[in-house]
Amino acid sequence: MNRQWLYAKPPQGKIAVDTFQWTETAIPVPRDGEALVRTRMLSLDPANRAWMMGKTYRDALQPGQVMSGFAVGEVVESKAAGLKAGDIVEGDWGWQDYAALPARRLAKRTTKAPLELLIGPLSITGLTAYFGLLEVGKPKPGDTVLVSAAAGAVGTMVGQIAKLAGCRVVGTAGGQDKCDWLVRDLGFDAAVDYKAGGVYRALRAVCPDGIDVYFDNTGGPVLDAALSLMNLRGRIACCGNVSQYDVEKPAPGPMAVPGLVVTKRLRMEGFIVMDFYGQRAEAEARLARWVEEGKIKAIVDIVDGLEKAPQALIDLFEGRNKGKRAVRL
Amino acid sequence: MNRQWLYAKPPQGKIAVDTFQWTETAIPVPRDGEALVRTRMLSLDPANRAWMMGKTYRDALQPGQVMSGFAVGEVVESKAAGLKAGDIVEGDWGWQDYAALPARRLAKRTTKAPLELLIGPLSITGLTAYFGLLEVGKPKPGDTVLVSAAAGAVGTMVGQIAKLAGCRVVGTAGGQDKCDWLVRDLGFDAAVDYKAGGVYRALRAVCPDGIDVYFDNTGGPVLDAALSLMNLRGRIACCGNVSQYDVEKPAPGPMAVPGLVVTKRLRMEGFIVMDFYGQRAEAEARLARWVEEGKIKAIVDIVDGLEKAPQALIDLFEGRNKGKRAVRL
Repeated sequence: MNRQWLYAKPPQGKIAVDTFQWTETAIPVPRDGEALVRTRMLSLDPANRAWMMGKTYRDALQPGQVMSGFAVGEVVESKAAGLKAGDIVEGDWGWQDYAALPARRLAKRTTKAPLELLIGPLSITGLTAYFGLLEVGKPKPGDTVLVSAAAGAVGTMVGQIAKLAGCRVVGTAGGQDKCDWLVRDLGFDAAVDYKAGGVYRALRAVCPDGIDVYFDNTGGPVLDAALSLMNLRGRIACCGNVSQYDVEKPAPGPMAVPGLVVTKRLRMEGFIVMDFYGQRAEAEARLARWVEEGKIKAIVDIVDGLEKAPQALIDLFEGRNKGKRAVRL
Repeated sequence: MNRQWLYAKPPQGKIAVDTFQWTETAIPVPRDGEALVRTRMLSLDPANRAWMMGKTYRDALQPGQVMSGFAVGEVVESKAAGLKAGDIVEGDWGWQDYAALPARRLAKRTTKAPLELLIGPLSITGLTAYFGLLEVGKPKPGDTVLVSAAAGAVGTMVGQIAKLAGCRVVGTAGGQDKCDWLVRDLGFDAAVDYKAGGVYRALRAVCPDGIDVYFDNTGGPVLDAALSLMNLRGRIACCGNVSQYDVEKPAPGPMAVPGLVVTKRLRMEGFIVMDFYGQRAEAEARLARWVEEGKIKAIVDIVDGLEKAPQALIDLFEGRNKGKRAVRL
């Protein structure tokens, strides 16, 4: 059987278990040009929630469809040129044991890295951090880099890459435990608990020279505070808006836009990791080398069992993960 | 005597005549290294109001000081190397008949263009339009360019330069008269009266292919509408926030930031014309040639008499000007 989680209905406010519906169906049979893939790892991302809100960089999720999500799997049967049984592939086939997909929707992975790394740190979330920081944020050695959701999948990578780039690195995270961990285990220079309130004052205290690059995963109050602390010609890499995804009514936009953007000549720039896939091979090789050499710790947070996917996503929005959260099947 | 307008006190809400105070004092005597300048033209700019709100790209205005403002004048006496009586200079010496200034605060103008053009279209506002559009907005032929406050000093230049660059040009302005004038006299492809309400729908109707570059002079509702209509990888050149300068309580920020900035990979970038002064000579030469050849109409709106400066600035925020408003002394 093919076990699946369907996207059942749009959440009213926060996602809940009944946002999803469990179903079992027959394992699909690949047609010519397709491969049958068995899911091995399923990525859980804040973007999953954003897709429920309407059209983004992809069409909105429709109730009744298999819940979408980035995944890593193994080809079990292939009628597609270039793919054979046993190949490890990645793609977006969602929350299910099996999928039959045309070859163009599958990217073959040839590295020998463990699947725990291929689902995030050496793939989509690692690349998001790499390109967003280096190509959009463009930090220089000595710059102060702030990253929000710093203990998350992207944030942990951004902070460590920024350290490699010679920057002073500050993160925000929910709770003092995570903040201590960022400084002690991941080499952040400082971390601020945004849940403790007073985030502007707290950031000002640990950014005495202001902020040159802000890698924004969250929007919301941290973006407001960062705008006030940005240095002249600072860069804000707009990666996500997670503070506003899992809410009934989004907060107003940042008051400092466009006022401080003008007077401080800031650049705010949005990006999606796929925009940079032309440069993917080199970036992946670097990330893999940094992890191998111990220069970057790849932090993963694995939940076992497809049946746990809804709760694992709910917990992501409660901030219960450290690093990349994924479901192992 | 040296007639002066002082900045008397911070406005509560809109600026009013009593924001300023008239005074007469002795004509200053230049010291070594200084030149005595007689004001010929005084620039009125939305930024004058922003300087009352706090520190921007310059220190906040302090009550009791001579009201600041960009000006063009004639050297009447010089103790500064490189300057002699009769030279035409520009600088920021504010709302007064005379000022004694060190040479480094005066830029000598050698062109023979009339002073009406040197106060704006061939100087600060023309350059703002030129650099903001071409260097920040980076339009390509065929792009749709939107500019707000299109009938103003910067907007009239942005629209015409964008036409020269092969773009489709849409403007927003207050009132149907100005909109008709933009299309009929300045070659805009369409113009929308933002005061008529429904600015999003109206812009959508005249931007069937979306917006590629938005030159934002206003912030506020036009920025909100533009963000919703921007195309993938669109650029927003953040030049000003005039809708929020002359108000008691600024409006909330744009809801679409950072959400749509991420999903549409937008770039919002602030700039100040002085940032580009290294490339000033070439830009000025081009602007002068375009005006000479009739490819661009330099629209100026001259008010005679220093005593009228406060009302002329108040009227600027009421939208009573077309093109560059300046006071002739």
